[in-house]
Amino acid sequence: MKKVAIIMGSDSDLPVVSKAADQLRELDIPFEMHIYSAHRTPEEASRFAAHAREEGFGVIIAAAGMAAHLAGALAAQTTLPVIGIPCVSGQLGGMDALLSTVQMPPGIPVATVAVGGAKNAALLAAQILAVEDAVLGAKLDAKRAADADAVRDKDAKLEG
Amino acid sequence: MKKVAIIMGSDSDLPVVSKAADQLRELDIPFEMHIYSAHRTPEEASRFAAHAREEGFGVIIAAAGMAAHLAGALAAQTTLPVIGIPCVSGQLGGMDALLSTVQMPPGIPVATVAVGGAKNAALLAAQILAVEDAVLGAKLDAKRAADADAVRDKDAKLEG
Amino acid sequence: MKKVAIIMGSDSDLPVVSKAADQLRELDIPFEMHIYSAHRTPEEASRFAAHAREEGFGVIIAAAGMAAHLAGALAAQTTLPVIGIPCVSGQLGGMDALLSTVQMPPGIPVATVAVGGAKNAALLAAQILAVEDAVLGAKLDAKRAADADAVRDKDAKLEG
Amino acid sequence: MKKVAIIMGSDSDLPVVSKAADQLRELDIPFEMHIYSAHRTPEEASRFAAHAREEGFGVIIAAAGMAAHLAGALAAQTTLPVIGIPCVSGQLGGMDALLSTVQMPPGIPVATVAVGGAKNAALLAAQILAVEDAVLGAKLDAKRAADADAVRDKDAKLEG
Amino acid sequence: MKKVAIIMGSDSDLPVVSKAADQLRELDIPFEMHIYSAHRTPEEASRFAAHAREEGFGVIIAAAGMAAHLAGALAAQTTLPVIGIPCVSGQLGGMDALLSTVQMPPGIPVATVAVGGAKNAALLAAQILAVEDAVLGAKLDAKRAADADAVRDKDAKLEG
Amino acid sequence: MKKVAIIMGSDSDLPVVSKAADQLRELDIPFEMHIYSAHRTPEEASRFAAHAREEGFGVIIAAAGMAAHLAGALAAQTTLPVIGIPCVSGQLGGMDALLSTVQMPPGIPVATVAVGGAKNAALLAAQILAVEDAVLGAKLDAKRAADADAVRDKDAKLEG
Amino acid sequence: MKKVAIIMGSDSDLPVVSKAADQLRELDIPFEMHIYSAHRTPEEASRFAAHAREEGFGVIIAAAGMAAHLAGALAAQTTLPVIGIPCVSGQLGGMDALLSTVQMPPGIPVATVAVGGAKNAALLAAQILAVEDAVLGAKLDAKRAADADAVRDKDAKLEG
Amino acid sequence: MKKVAIIMGSDSDLPVVSKAADQLRELDIPFEMHIYSAHRTPEEASRFAAHAREEGFGVIIAAAGMAAHLAGALAAQTTLPVIGIPCVSGQLGGMDALLSTVQMPPGIPVATVAVGGAKNAALLAAQILAVEDAVLGAKLDAKRAADADAVRDKDAKLEG
Repeated sequence: MKKVAIIMGSDSDLPVVSKAADQLRELDIPFEMHIYSAHRTPEEASRFAAHAREEGFGVIIAAAGMAAHLAGALAAQTTLPVIGIPCVSGQLGGMDALLSTVQMPPGIPVATVAVGGAKNAALLAAQILAVEDAVLGAKLDAKRAADADAVRDKDAKLEG
Repeated sequence: MKKVAIIMGSDSDLPVVSKAADQLRELDIPFEMHIYSAHRTPEEASRFAAHAREEGFGVIIAAAGMAAHLAGALAAQTTLPVIGIPCVSGQLGGMDALLSTVQMPPGIPVATVAVGGAKNAALLAAQILAVEDAVLGAKLDAKRAADADAVRDKDAKLEG
Repeated sequence: MKKVAIIMGSDSDLPVVSKAADQLRELDIPFEMHIYSAHRTPEEASRFAAHAREEGFGVIIAAAGMAAHLAGALAAQTTLPVIGIPCVSGQLGGMDALLSTVQMPPGIPVATVAVGGAKNAALLAAQILAVEDAVLGAKLDAKRAADADAVRDKDAKLEG
Repeated sequence: MKKVAIIMGSDSDLPVVSKAADQLRELDIPFEMHIYSAHRTPEEASRFAAHAREEGFGVIIAAAGMAAHLAGALAAQTTLPVIGIPCVSGQLGGMDALLSTVQMPPGIPVATVAVGGAKNAALLAAQILAVEDAVLGAKLDAKRAADADAVRDKDAKLEG
Repeated sequence: MKKVAIIMGSDSDLPVVSKAADQLRELDIPFEMHIYSAHRTPEEASRFAAHAREEGFGVIIAAAGMAAHLAGALAAQTTLPVIGIPCVSGQLGGMDALLSTVQMPPGIPVATVAVGGAKNAALLAAQILAVEDAVLGAKLDAKRAADADAVRDKDAKLEG
Repeated sequence: MKKVAIIMGSDSDLPVVSKAADQLRELDIPFEMHIYSAHRTPEEASRFAAHAREEGFGVIIAAAGMAAHLAGALAAQTTLPVIGIPCVSGQLGGMDALLSTVQMPPGIPVATVAVGGAKNAALLAAQILAVEDAVLGAKLDAKRAADADAVRDKDAKLEG
Repeated sequence: MKKVAIIMGSDSDLPVVSKAADQLRELDIPFEMHIYSAHRTPEEASRFAAHAREEGFGVIIAAAGMAAHLAGALAAQTTLPVIGIPCVSGQLGGMDALLSTVQMPPGIPVATVAVGGAKNAALLAAQILAVEDAVLGAKLDAKRAADADAVRDKDAKLEG
Repeated sequence: MKKVAIIMGSDSDLPVVSKAADQLRELDIPFEMHIYSAHRTPEEASRFAAHAREEGFGVIIAAAGMAAHLAGALAAQTTLPVIGIPCVSGQLGGMDALLSTVQMPPGIPVATVAVGGAKNAALLAAQILAVEDAVLGAKLDAKRAADADAVRDKDAKLEG
């Protein structure tokens, strides 16, 4: 199976990003985690993205806050799907990171999830890998069914 | 090759959505286009998404404006990757559609692109299909190179 | 008397939603409370709304956060009045839920109250039921008068 | 059948408000239309709302722009359901009117629809009247079915 | 000297409003404080404003949160200057109250100060009364000079 | 009678500001109009404000766009009431000018009106002068009554 | 004298950027203009910035819209001052470009000017070069004086 | 070497501003720190800026919150580069200070950094001084390299 890369712009994003790692682990999807800063170590970031496909990665997840350029900087170096997680940093509620991540110009898409949406980033990565992987697809379907059952249980208890 | 579905919530989204269709055509990616409204024809929308994988689709693109629920409604019925295009409708500049599309709750991701970002939605769909399709990947890489050359040409003319 | 349905998208909305329940209890309005998620249990949500009128419901209250699709998803399945409560979830102050709830497209209205406005949602439900129920109308008028007296008391104490 | 009141704060809101009138006419719902300003003719506005129930009204629709107080001012004088239409006026895209209309304090709800959502305001009024009126309810269900068919037709033509 | 009225929409606004009272006291400006709600006791609010001039008031200060209609509702009943203090209530940072207070339609101005700007509301009221009151004007000038000295002292200590 | 000063930061604000001048003329209130820029001619702006009271002015109106510092800069030099008109300039809908004008720090109030609210600025200036001027007060009351009659006329025609 | 570089992300930014070029020409400051895209030609952008100092540049101006990464991407490669011009592109009024440009993380500053503020970007570049260049400083002072005179002339004509 | 001036509008900005001082100290750049308020001690602020160049300053850093006029007021009095730090004060997350600082009119630029971005303000000041100071430039390059190494170390530990 292709691997997922989880790249964060700063170790301060680790508490958010670890939820993505947990989700991938739960789904037995191999992944690597790195700290590459679009601004402090741009060469490392670029080089990683440029070689990600040949290194066996299928999807890249990038998490960053403020003027969140990381996902876009990685996306500029690869045609692998890049998923962006806007992180809250400072006082603007993550609106800065959201707009910096999602408003990409034509030609270089970033698949953006909700502010702080690390779990969904991992699930989206899994869904992408599952396009051609029926086993993983079945796992995701099962997880969906389990999630639905959990809601049903809570509803049943509410009534009981 | 798996097909891409382009779903729009209203025929008023067609001018935006057609840029996605054009991009897919340019890349020789098979696609189908439908008008399914999350609110006016929710059964059609749900049924389509629920059967999309078995019908040979690999990715779903959903475009909607205002309280843009379409991408989320489709995503709720499938574990295929769903790409959301927030469309401008009315006076809030598409901020309503952007937040309605991207701020999905944990469990059901929507891969959101920029407001009106139909071309990038198509490219993201292609990049997803190219994870396991080297030929398409090469096409995308070639397109990237051509885009870069176009920028270089414009830069050269600017100096000349 | 027709019943009121209080639907929440997640049990995390219960602290907000319980204020609606308290208000309905105070007014002796029968109600049922459910957890139906527009994204995790969409069938349950749809089925409930589609049968709500024949099950004796007169109004549906729906509370959800983030990309709050629940009220709209229920409204799509019934012509009963649906009241939406945008809930705060995450860092955007509920603006995401507000726009996702109120900016409904033509044809499918959602009666939206303030962010976190569960008490007003219950009062609005009561006012709707009171259109044809003079006894309930009188109760609401009495409550209004009592609320006004409470303000007058506070004003009097302020001066005293 | 109970009447609907359509109140606008200024005759400049007439182009928006007329869509509500058209929708009510289409549904054969009796209505009256008035210009009462929360700020320029507050007594007329208050008096109207205070007597609306005894004058045979079942729902009040209020449309206003900027610091849109009209719906709230009417709601303060009656326990009839009051529906607020935030209108665009000036440069803030109607965000001022939306927040001024929807963010009502506990005790006095306003059922807010989308910015400029006059058609939905009329439909919501109809849905409220239809809680106890099976004939009107059937009409609304038929209209929903017709709207769905219109979407299906457009989808069919798109494919053809 | 003419009196200042400080009106708040709810006793929850008292902590903010008391800073206005403190400032007026410091300037020996007579004032009265009331709780009148634009929505719960609209008649009291209207009546007060309508008679404020003949009761010896020169300026009205109004503090309210959320869909803050109070200042506008008072302004509609008097041609005395009305100063609006937008208060923070809930999660939108007071932006709802700011827009609801400042975006008044032509004909009925409200002199709006910063979100939570109770002290400035009192100073503005004093400045209005000082237009024809040289003694109060001198007091305000002296206060300004003292404020400037306080800044100078802090600057001097910073350097020392 | 004391004069009103209308200061604008740029001649591009003249179309907005002229509505304030028209309103003052209609009320026979003497006024002077100047272009003083807080950034390009700060000395002129400061000097004017510092001497405005002794030159017979009672109120200063200041209109500016973008980072609208003019009203605050004038307010820093006088204890006369300063009214700020945020003007739209550029693409942010006047939100920049609104926040730059209204969010003044404690000690230096600016009486802010709506974005582009030049007419209300003039009326507010008149209301301030009318605190001690019964004749002007009566004029303003008469104007209010006339405005109300105009609304009543429009309402009557609507019904006819 | 050191040169100024004007870099734009797309030739669609040329109408904005040309105002910066005009201003530099007026001040006889040598400059070069390039189209380097942070996403389409990231290597060219990086290489230019990395060598800008040794190529005789003293300041870099970068103009881009949407998720405007260009200024930050250049700033990551040089310790020359980088000035960012957020450009309007699409429907969000340039708020996306503003936040993407100004909210840089600690370590990599971008000197951001107003949305579309190309003229000020050029002036800021000139002011930076003038820190050690008395002749240019005098030119800038003279320009300021001329700008002030232009405002004074307009004010004089207004009065005349 | 030319000095840097750090000006704050209030001593409440000191915790933010001290990070700028720390950064300058680390780089051995001489600086002075002052509290000058654009509104409470405007003369001191103006006089300082007007004489800053002749007093040996090369760059001015200005930090202020709310309607943050300080940077603009200083910039109006000098052609030295002025760097603005928008500070958070109150409930609007610093958006008020950001827009008040960055949206300067043509002719008077302010080099704006992120909300609370004091460290970057100091670095930008250093970069400006380093345009003509190769030693300082080398120091900044070394610091960049060290910052990059710190990120690399964190990345290495993450993997280890």
